[in-house]
Amino acid sequence: MDSVSVIGMTSIVIAGMTIAIGSIAPALGQGKAVAQALASIAQQPDEANTISRTLFVGLAMIESTAIYCFVVSMILLFANPFWNLITG
Amino acid sequence: MDSVSVIGMTSIVIAGMTIAIGSIAPALGQGKAVAQALASIAQQPDEANTISRTLFVGLAMIESTAIYCFVVSMILLFANPFWNLITG
Amino acid sequence: MDSVSVIGMTSIVIAGMTIAIGSIAPALGQGKAVAQALASIAQQPDEANTISRTLFVGLAMIESTAIYCFVVSMILLFANPFWNLITG
Amino acid sequence: MDSVSVIGMTSIVIAGMTIAIGSIAPALGQGKAVAQALASIAQQPDEANTISRTLFVGLAMIESTAIYCFVVSMILLFANPFWNLITG
Amino acid sequence: MDSVSVIGMTSIVIAGMTIAIGSIAPALGQGKAVAQALASIAQQPDEANTISRTLFVGLAMIESTAIYCFVVSMILLFANPFWNLITG
Amino acid sequence: MDSVSVIGMTSIVIAGMTIAIGSIAPALGQGKAVAQALASIAQQPDEANTISRTLFVGLAMIESTAIYCFVVSMILLFANPFWNLITG
Amino acid sequence: MDSVSVIGMTSIVIAGMTIAIGSIAPALGQGKAVAQALASIAQQPDEANTISRTLFVGLAMIESTAIYCFVVSMILLFANPFWNLITG
Amino acid sequence: MDSVSVIGMTSIVIAGMTIAIGSIAPALGQGKAVAQALASIAQQPDEANTISRTLFVGLAMIESTAIYCFVVSMILLFANPFWNLITG
Amino acid sequence: MDSVSVIGMTSIVIAGMTIAIGSIAPALGQGKAVAQALASIAQQPDEANTISRTLFVGLAMIESTAIYCFVVSMILLFANPFWNLITG
Amino acid sequence: MDSVSVIGMTSIVIAGMTIAIGSIAPALGQGKAVAQALASIAQQPDEANTISRTLFVGLAMIESTAIYCFVVSMILLFANPFWNLITG
Amino acid sequence: MDSVSVIGMTSIVIAGMTIAIGSIAPALGQGKAVAQALASIAQQPDEANTISRTLFVGLAMIESTAIYCFVVSMILLFANPFWNLITG
Amino acid sequence: MDSVSVIGMTSIVIAGMTIAIGSIAPALGQGKAVAQALASIAQQPDEANTISRTLFVGLAMIESTAIYCFVVSMILLFANPFWNLITG
Amino acid sequence: MDSVSVIGMTSIVIAGMTIAIGSIAPALGQGKAVAQALASIAQQPDEANTISRTLFVGLAMIESTAIYCFVVSMILLFANPFWNLITG
Amino acid sequence: MDSVSVIGMTSIVIAGMTIAIGSIAPALGQGKAVAQALASIAQQPDEANTISRTLFVGLAMIESTAIYCFVVSMILLFANPFWNLITG
Repeated sequence: MDSVSVIGMTSIVIAGMTIAIGSIAPALGQGKAVAQALASIAQQPDEANTISRTLFVGLAMIESTAIYCFVVSMILLFANPFWNLITG
Repeated sequence: MDSVSVIGMTSIVIAGMTIAIGSIAPALGQGKAVAQALASIAQQPDEANTISRTLFVGLAMIESTAIYCFVVSMILLFANPFWNLITG
Repeated sequence: MDSVSVIGMTSIVIAGMTIAIGSIAPALGQGKAVAQALASIAQQPDEANTISRTLFVGLAMIESTAIYCFVVSMILLFANPFWNLITG
Repeated sequence: MDSVSVIGMTSIVIAGMTIAIGSIAPALGQGKAVAQALASIAQQPDEANTISRTLFVGLAMIESTAIYCFVVSMILLFANPFWNLITG
Repeated sequence: MDSVSVIGMTSIVIAGMTIAIGSIAPALGQGKAVAQALASIAQQPDEANTISRTLFVGLAMIESTAIYCFVVSMILLFANPFWNLITG
Repeated sequence: MDSVSVIGMTSIVIAGMTIAIGSIAPALGQGKAVAQALASIAQQPDEANTISRTLFVGLAMIESTAIYCFVVSMILLFANPFWNLITG
Repeated sequence: MDSVSVIGMTSIVIAGMTIAIGSIAPALGQGKAVAQALASIAQQPDEANTISRTLFVGLAMIESTAIYCFVVSMILLFANPFWNLITG
Repeated sequence: MDSVSVIGMTSIVIAGMTIAIGSIAPALGQGKAVAQALASIAQQPDEANTISRTLFVGLAMIESTAIYCFVVSMILLFANPFWNLITG
Repeated sequence: MDSVSVIGMTSIVIAGMTIAIGSIAPALGQGKAVAQALASIAQQPDEANTISRTLFVGLAMIESTAIYCFVVSMILLFANPFWNLITG
Repeated sequence: MDSVSVIGMTSIVIAGMTIAIGSIAPALGQGKAVAQALASIAQQPDEANTISRTLFVGLAMIESTAIYCFVVSMILLFANPFWNLITG
Repeated sequence: MDSVSVIGMTSIVIAGMTIAIGSIAPALGQGKAVAQALASIAQQPDEANTISRTLFVGLAMIESTAIYCFVVSMILLFANPFWNLITG
Repeated sequence: MDSVSVIGMTSIVIAGMTIAIGSIAPALGQGKAVAQALASIAQQPDEANTISRTLFVGLAMIESTAIYCFVVSMILLFANPFWNLITG
Repeated sequence: MDSVSVIGMTSIVIAGMTIAIGSIAPALGQGKAVAQALASIAQQPDEANTISRTLFVGLAMIESTAIYCFVVSMILLFANPFWNLITG
Repeated sequence: MDSVSVIGMTSIVIAGMTIAIGSIAPALGQGKAVAQALASIAQQPDEANTISRTLFVGLAMIESTAIYCFVVSMILLFANPFWNLITG
């Protein structure tokens, strides 16, 4: 295989796998946090506002790791420095 | 194998695997959140509205990681920059 | 192997594996949600309607990830852009 | 190996593996749902009808993912577009 | 290897593996359901009839996924379209 | 390797592996059901007959998946259509 | 490798692996059943006879899957149809 | 590699692996049964005799699967029909 | 493959995999911490401030390991010393 | 590789792996049994003698599977029939 | 591949994998410690200072293993003795 | 590779792996036993002597499996019969 | 590949993997110990000093296994006897 | 590869992997023992001395398996009989 095939193939594989693997843990972590938030609201309805606010901050923190992966995936698809150099 | 085969084969593999792997965690996370929501409603029926609203926001956050994967999968099938360059 | 074999073989493999792997988590998630719904009804029979309604919305959200996989699988079998280009 | 062998071999492998892997999660999910339904009936016999009805709707939803896999398996065995094109 | 060996070997492998893998989850799921049924009868002997009836319906649903696998296994051994075409 | 070696080797491998893998889940499932039956008898001795009867029906259902595997294993050893055709 | 080596090697491998893998689940299942039986006797000493009888029936059922594997293993070592045909 | 090497190597590998793998589950199962027996004696000292007797019967049943593996291992080392035929 | 392909391919693979694997544990750990924070607030609303402050310090500590991985990933994509030397 | 290398290499590998793998389960099982014995003594100090006696019988049974593996390992190192025949 | 490619490729792979794998356990361990700290504060608010101080010491100890990995990763990227010798 | 390399390489690999793998289970089992001993002493301080004595006997039994592995490892490094014969 | 490449490549791989794998268990074990320490302080504030002292001794013991790995890693990078001999 | 490369490479790999794998279980086991010791002190502060003494004996026993691995690792790096013979 020549360089174009190798770099292209690798970029596709990694672009997909990065977001696929990278979405596993955030989804599980968010599911856990949301589930606990619902249990907490049922237990202490008067604190629903505080719970919601803390939940959203937490979800944003967790989402950030998924977004790191999405950014790398997009860079590999549309702003790939290795591909640009080889096909340039 | 020539470049067309390699890039085509890789795109198909990754398009399928990205959405397949990427759907595991969201489905599990949503299942957990929904299950807890049902338990919370049974425990505190008066807060059903608050619980439902928080649940839907949470499901949307979790769904977002599945959608990232679906987007990458569709890009690989129908707007693949590597394929376009090679077959262009 | 020539391109036709490679692309055809890959499409078959991924069409099957995408739906096979993609159906694992939704089925487990739905099983969890349904089991909890039954437990909630047994615990709070008066809220059976609210529980059922929330359950069905949740099942639909979870089913959506299985459907993403089924869509990709069908595209690979019957509307495969790579196969069309090579055998066109 | 020539194309006929490759496509045939792949179709057999995937037809079997799709239904084999695809039947794991639905069977486990259904087992969980049925087990919980029995526990709920034992706990709240008066709601046996509501529980049964919800159980059957849930089992049907879970079964649907197994059926997606069975459909793909049957398509690969008896209506395989790649095989038809190559042996046509 | 020629086509006859390849197709034959593959059919044997998949016929066995499909039923072997496909029998894992139904057996586990049924074991869980039966175990819970026994616990429920011990807890609520008066509902033994309702529990038995629900159990049998559930076992039949779970058994269905094992039967899908057995059907595919038998098709591959005795009504294999690929084998028939090649050895025809 | 010639066809006889390939088909023979494959048949031996799959005959053994099918029953080996296929016996895992039934044995675990039956162990779980038997264990629960013993616990139920200890808890509710007056219902020992009902529990035993339900247990035996359940064990037979679970055993059925092991028997599917044993049947396929015996077919591969003593009534193998592929072996018969090649050595016929 | 010639046919004799291949068939002989495969028979040895599978004869050993079948009983090795096939003994995992029965041993675990029996361990679970015995452990529960001991717990039940400690909890309800008056029912020791009923518990023992049910235990032995259950152990026999579980042992049966180990015996299926042992039978296949012995057939491969001492009554192997493929070996007999090739060395006949 | 010639036949002698292949058959000899395979026999050694399987003789060791059969007993190694085959000893995992019995040891775990016996550990569980012994642990439960100790707990039962502590809970119900008056039934120590019944518990011990049931324990020893159970240990013998579980040990039997380890012994099947040991028998196959010894056959492969000292009464190996394939080795005898080739080196005979 | 020449050096450019090898180094380029490796850099892409590792850039993606580092952030993908490296995001698993932080997301899970943060999910656990957030879930516990919500439970603690529901249990002790008066300490919501202390809990939030400790939570945010903890999240920052956990996020730091994800950031180590992101830094390495960015270095490999945009400041790769091996790539610079080879393509320089 | 010639026969001496193959048989020697295989014997070393299996001699080590048999005892390495074969020591996993007995150590875990014994750890479980010892832990439970300590808990039982703490709970029922008057039965320390009965508990110790049952514990030692159980440890001996569990140790037996480790000893099977050690025996096979020593046979392969110092009384290896295959090695003797080839180097004889 | 020549030495430059091999050493370069290996350094990249290991630099990334070391920090990726090495960040898994610290993140999980820190998540566990933080979660428990929050639970302890909710349970014993008066000891918040002692708990925080112990938590921070513990987090630093856990972080140290992540830092060992980061150090090795940086050495491989920017102070690699093997690379320096070969490209020197 | 010649015989010396093969036998030497294999001996090194197995000498290390035997003790590495063989130390996993004893360490875990001992950790469990020690943890339970500490819990038992806290629960029943008057029996500290009996508990310690039983603990040390149990630790010695568990350590024995690690020592089997260490013995095999030392034999392979310093009294290796295969190495002696080949380099003799 | 020549010796320099092989030894260099191997040293890099093992230097990184040793510390990466070797940091998993200490981080988890320390996380567990710290979490329990926090729970113990919350439960028994008066013993905070004894608990802290025992915790720090325990953390040092656990850290020691991580340090063994770090030492081996540094030896391989900067005092590698094999590399010195080959490049000497 | 010549003998020097093979033996050197193998020694490096196993020296690192032995201590890396061999440190997993001791660290986990020690973490468990330390955690339980802290819980026991919190529960029974008067027995802190007995608990500490038993803990340290237990930690030493567990550490011993890590030290076996470290010894083998050092032997392979600095007193390797195979390396000495080949490079002697």
